[in-house]
Amino acid sequence: MSSQLRLAVDAMGGDLGPRSVVPACVRFLQNFPAAQLKLFGPRAQLEALFLEQRHPRIPDRLEIVDCEQVVTQECNPLQAVRHKRDSTMAEALRAVAEGDAQAMVTSGNTGALLALSRSVLGNIEGVRKPALGKSVPSGHGSCYLLDLGANVGCNAEDLLQFARMGIEAQHLHTGTPRADIEVALLNIGAEAHKGTAEIRRAAELLEADPEVNYVGFVEGHDIFTGAVDVVVCDGLMGNVAMKSAEGVIRLMGQKAFTIEKKGCFKRFFGQLAIKLLRKWRTQVEPARYNGASFVGVKGNVIKSHGGASSEAFYRAMVTAKECADANLAARVGAALVQAGERNSRAIG
Amino acid sequence: MSSQLRLAVDAMGGDLGPRSVVPACVRFLQNFPAAQLKLFGPRAQLEALFLEQRHPRIPDRLEIVDCEQVVTQECNPLQAVRHKRDSTMAEALRAVAEGDAQAMVTSGNTGALLALSRSVLGNIEGVRKPALGKSVPSGHGSCYLLDLGANVGCNAEDLLQFARMGIEAQHLHTGTPRADIEVALLNIGAEAHKGTAEIRRAAELLEADPEVNYVGFVEGHDIFTGAVDVVVCDGLMGNVAMKSAEGVIRLMGQKAFTIEKKGCFKRFFGQLAIKLLRKWRTQVEPARYNGASFVGVKGNVIKSHGGASSEAFYRAMVTAKECADANLAARVGAALVQAGERNSRAIG
Repeated sequence: MSSQLRLAVDAMGGDLGPRSVVPACVRFLQNFPAAQLKLFGPRAQLEALFLEQRHPRIPDRLEIVDCEQVVTQECNPLQAVRHKRDSTMAEALRAVAEGDAQAMVTSGNTGALLALSRSVLGNIEGVRKPALGKSVPSGHGSCYLLDLGANVGCNAEDLLQFARMGIEAQHLHTGTPRADIEVALLNIGAEAHKGTAEIRRAAELLEADPEVNYVGFVEGHDIFTGAVDVVVCDGLMGNVAMKSAEGVIRLMGQKAFTIEKKGCFKRFFGQLAIKLLRKWRTQVEPARYNGASFVGVKGNVIKSHGGASSEAFYRAMVTAKECADANLAARVGAALVQAGERNSRAIG
Repeated sequence: MSSQLRLAVDAMGGDLGPRSVVPACVRFLQNFPAAQLKLFGPRAQLEALFLEQRHPRIPDRLEIVDCEQVVTQECNPLQAVRHKRDSTMAEALRAVAEGDAQAMVTSGNTGALLALSRSVLGNIEGVRKPALGKSVPSGHGSCYLLDLGANVGCNAEDLLQFARMGIEAQHLHTGTPRADIEVALLNIGAEAHKGTAEIRRAAELLEADPEVNYVGFVEGHDIFTGAVDVVVCDGLMGNVAMKSAEGVIRLMGQKAFTIEKKGCFKRFFGQLAIKLLRKWRTQVEPARYNGASFVGVKGNVIKSHGGASSEAFYRAMVTAKECADANLAARVGAALVQAGERNSRAIG
């Protein structure tokens, strides 16, 4: 599988666009000598950017697919599906749909990506709502958090399905046997009476599912410091959790760099300390754990952070490679079909 | 005012209970030589703890009010109002209701506190839902975030009222003129079509209010790195934002201590780095910015973090003193009455 790995890459998303994507592609091909890339974007602009690289030529295993139409950040999901069917984003998705690539990566507009993914790839059979999920650093290694903002207003059945998809993704990511993967619901307290009616109803559904090792409610801090493996929530909550964590880590970096400037002694040790601090940050900063998977559609779709640097976009490409190697989308599909069959048998 | 300041302190809440409260009280009285404290809890237990302090006697300006009933973490809001009317928490609130103290502080059960506050103190006239709010560190100083979890399922009118209360609190906290206080709504994206129907409707109400300097939607990271002064949201989102930020900062500390143990050179600089890291953490860690105000009730009620150390509880007491000195509750009340009168005039 991995010897023929090909990723479809949307060159035109995010704040930096191809300026972060092109160096990430060069690095990716260096580090994965068997991988191939298909890069979607305006040929002339991309070629010019390759000339600026240290080895100014287009790598053999990279094919540029000339494509002018771009999905902007302002484009809403409906407009994307109606008017952006020839965009770099849509073309990259089509490469996955046609089996020409095993995964696609973009740092473009999230809403448009979700709408185009559903339209071009389609939902896995039985999936109510595909969700954005991501592995985040935690005290015991990593925790898979979903939904990160694909869906607002999820009901209990949606949350149960997120749990099943999350178990599959975390199993792939860590190798932990499915039965040992502890699943929790994000809430504002651990007590049973807390939260919305849908969260409490989801707790009943998860409790009743024999295939889900449900351990109860957790709070925001438990995503990072708790012992659970999968945390399930509505997209509004997941998005706020992820972005607040990013914000406070970024603020901490800013404060650190301010102190650094004061006093000679402090500056000297500050420099050394900041080096270590950067290392610690890299380990915990959720943005560095870059690349959220859009699980529940028929294909591996990886969303990189919109503000992604070339380093961060490279990491999203590695995440895409991992998903492609393990065939995450197909495995999530198989898991949900099995769950559906169990349910039918239980009802029948 | 501040020469007669008296705080009512619930000794029995939080993970550590009086073990964190008693040392915090001693330190508070040392640092504020004109302040008085009324401490509610089991006399014998509290006296024993004072004997363990460095100066083993009960300070002159501290009065212990003997009180055995305790609100546990498992107690739900209804049970609290029905069966815990003689608890340390309720008695401390009653001291504020009767004018015997200008503010109360507790690290106890949040749900019970909110229910008892409404019952013992009552809502300020015209307040739909009191909210938990807190000043958090941000790139430009501080940002007032509310609601932090008092209310789940807020509608647009609730959010508008949170904005008005937040402006008053932030004005008190920073001295920024009310008209210059930038207010934003927490959402999953800055674009107008994002979020729930209630969030979008709240945006219209805030936009239309001439007394609110509304600047639009912000995302989780903007709480800490953005330029806005007040961020308004449903309690579910605010709680997740705050606790996720706390969690990731705590995780970073854990990672640092793991690395510290490895290698001689690293250990040396690691020690220095950790010293600086601790300082930076103190500046950004939301738990250290301890003490959320329950705004919208007739009295100053301060909720300390449940896991509060003695250092953190001390900070919550300082927050309570600030609220009492400025008479936050009365000022929020006056601001809402004025807003109500403007609305009546506009309708009339």
